[in-house]
Amino acid sequence: MLERSVEWIQGKKSRGMVKLIDQTRLPFSFEHVYIKNVDQMVEAIRTMVVRGAPAIGAAAGMGMALAAINSNAGSRDELMDRLAQAKRKLDVSRPTAVNLAWATSKILAKAKILDGKVPSIVRGVIHEARKIADEDVATNKRIGSHGAQLLSDGDMILTHCNAGAIATVGFGTALGVVRAAVAMGKQVTVLADETRPRLQGALLTCWEMQQEKIPVIHITDNQAGLLMKMGKVSKVLVGADRIVNDAVFNKVGTYGVAIMAKYHTIPFYVAAPRSTLDLGNTSKTVEIEQRDPAEVKTVFNKVRLSPDGVPAFNYAFDATPMELITGVITEDGVFTPDQLLSNYSEQSL
Amino acid sequence: MLERSVEWIQGKKSRGMVKLIDQTRLPFSFEHVYIKNVDQMVEAIRTMVVRGAPAIGAAAGMGMALAAINSNAGSRDELMDRLAQAKRKLDVSRPTAVNLAWATSKILAKAKILDGKVPSIVRGVIHEARKIADEDVATNKRIGSHGAQLLSDGDMILTHCNAGAIATVGFGTALGVVRAAVAMGKQVTVLADETRPRLQGALLTCWEMQQEKIPVIHITDNQAGLLMKMGKVSKVLVGADRIVNDAVFNKVGTYGVAIMAKYHTIPFYVAAPRSTLDLGNTSKTVEIEQRDPAEVKTVFNKVRLSPDGVPAFNYAFDATPMELITGVITEDGVFTPDQLLSNYSEQSL
Repeated sequence: MLERSVEWIQGKKSRGMVKLIDQTRLPFSFEHVYIKNVDQMVEAIRTMVVRGAPAIGAAAGMGMALAAINSNAGSRDELMDRLAQAKRKLDVSRPTAVNLAWATSKILAKAKILDGKVPSIVRGVIHEARKIADEDVATNKRIGSHGAQLLSDGDMILTHCNAGAIATVGFGTALGVVRAAVAMGKQVTVLADETRPRLQGALLTCWEMQQEKIPVIHITDNQAGLLMKMGKVSKVLVGADRIVNDAVFNKVGTYGVAIMAKYHTIPFYVAAPRSTLDLGNTSKTVEIEQRDPAEVKTVFNKVRLSPDGVPAFNYAFDATPMELITGVITEDGVFTPDQLLSNYSEQSL
Repeated sequence: MLERSVEWIQGKKSRGMVKLIDQTRLPFSFEHVYIKNVDQMVEAIRTMVVRGAPAIGAAAGMGMALAAINSNAGSRDELMDRLAQAKRKLDVSRPTAVNLAWATSKILAKAKILDGKVPSIVRGVIHEARKIADEDVATNKRIGSHGAQLLSDGDMILTHCNAGAIATVGFGTALGVVRAAVAMGKQVTVLADETRPRLQGALLTCWEMQQEKIPVIHITDNQAGLLMKMGKVSKVLVGADRIVNDAVFNKVGTYGVAIMAKYHTIPFYVAAPRSTLDLGNTSKTVEIEQRDPAEVKTVFNKVRLSPDGVPAFNYAFDATPMELITGVITEDGVFTPDQLLSNYSEQSL
């Protein structure tokens, strides 16, 4: 089992810091980054030291805890102001993932109902942030156990980007389903779309599966269609950054994979926690993050691709409409899109 | 106008060599490679110093001429043996493109019907090889003029890989159509799929369009679906390595683009010369080239991606079934798949 990607380190009294696995260094170097204040956390999220919707949710929650600790607030009101300010910074560090705002809202709401003096509220905020991280791991294990029922012995599972242990606090969503299936004794092979431009599939999914000794094959994004045609893809399994009432937002390229899966009548599953649900919104209301074109025009600034002066698009996410989705796996079970909407619209999240 | 990518340099008497633009150096360095014998030509094709189906057809034809020159054959029979041997080497240097075998067969057939002594036959072979190259440029201009009728002012044209001037002897097939439309005064923007793993779209298509001052935008292969959904793709236009009676073989990823275009009801056109047609065969009979996994596991051996020990697939081509194709543009006009089959099955190619 991999260590947690996001971990709270409790210091003396109400001090503390956050230990992150530096995902920009994997797989060739395994290093940590220690985060001591909210600005450092914003930067870590923005530069993708920590990435993956559930992981950045937990990281943002801990960023709120750091803001509380560092506030030196003299009053309850001052502390609430500082938390609200921290929330605003964290929420825009990556615009697409909804887990971010979900976590910061949860912390802020908790702080508001806590009684007592400032130090006691700060302790309560830290407790809540750690609880979000703990619950993420438990949630993913439940997702894994529901999803594993869908996989068969011998399956070739195509996945896009990295929805693994390091995209969460631990265990993973899409790759958590694979882990759970393997733990049940099923033989499963993962086909990892490399996922340009940041190549999280090649770098992270391949590394993570190799760590667990689960067979994995690295493919270029361009080979997915051919491999489906050749019968080498049994199912597609991806994570999600945000699920609205008509679509699933996930790493750019997911939409194309879903269209190709539909064309070949291959099941397409999304594995994601309830914290990813934003069913009160539609895809039209979601801003798709555009990142630096340099990520496209080079490979990690190490290899130049298109010549200077040629513009590049770098949309980081796309929206896969519900009609292309076979099922969504949450901690509560497996749902068709219709079931998902009816089940979760009836409960407050 | 770019210089020819494949050019015969005539020496004294019946000597000569071939000047190639080194496409592995573009776009950051413009260099030539001079080829003096058939083994050097096989290596240049294999390592993609020269690439693109029509360009490697012309290069292979010139490889036959070099074999004739270097044969020092004492008799007509000996010369024919040497040519047959050269053809065998050249034909397997890249297995998917049919233009290769088309050109070498054409030269061999020509040699067989030439009268006279060895030196005279050698001169005839050189003449035939140069004629193939000249005709390629003329053919592409005709493809361009037919295809340009299909493009409208303001079109955003998505293309995959590089079917440009440097993929041919000159002018290009898919990008020749763009050139011809621009020459007619139409405003056209090219969206260049970068085309992992060899990134010909980013490196070559972007460079070529920039040279011609035609607007081009570099995109990752993963963004094609999203951009179609956003209404940023008017038409898809690609080249071909081989057209059989049920499918078009082209750079891997073309098939996925075609599926996505169909889903969005965006027209999908293939531009290719008659020499690409192999309508007597079906897709089942075509071997798809598998290249070194290191091309996938790294970016040009400069950046490592997946960890050591993780296998990778590197299929270089895929087959797009005729049902996904709106039209095929040849030097004779624009054909629906049905028209293509009926038109060309009635004539000998």
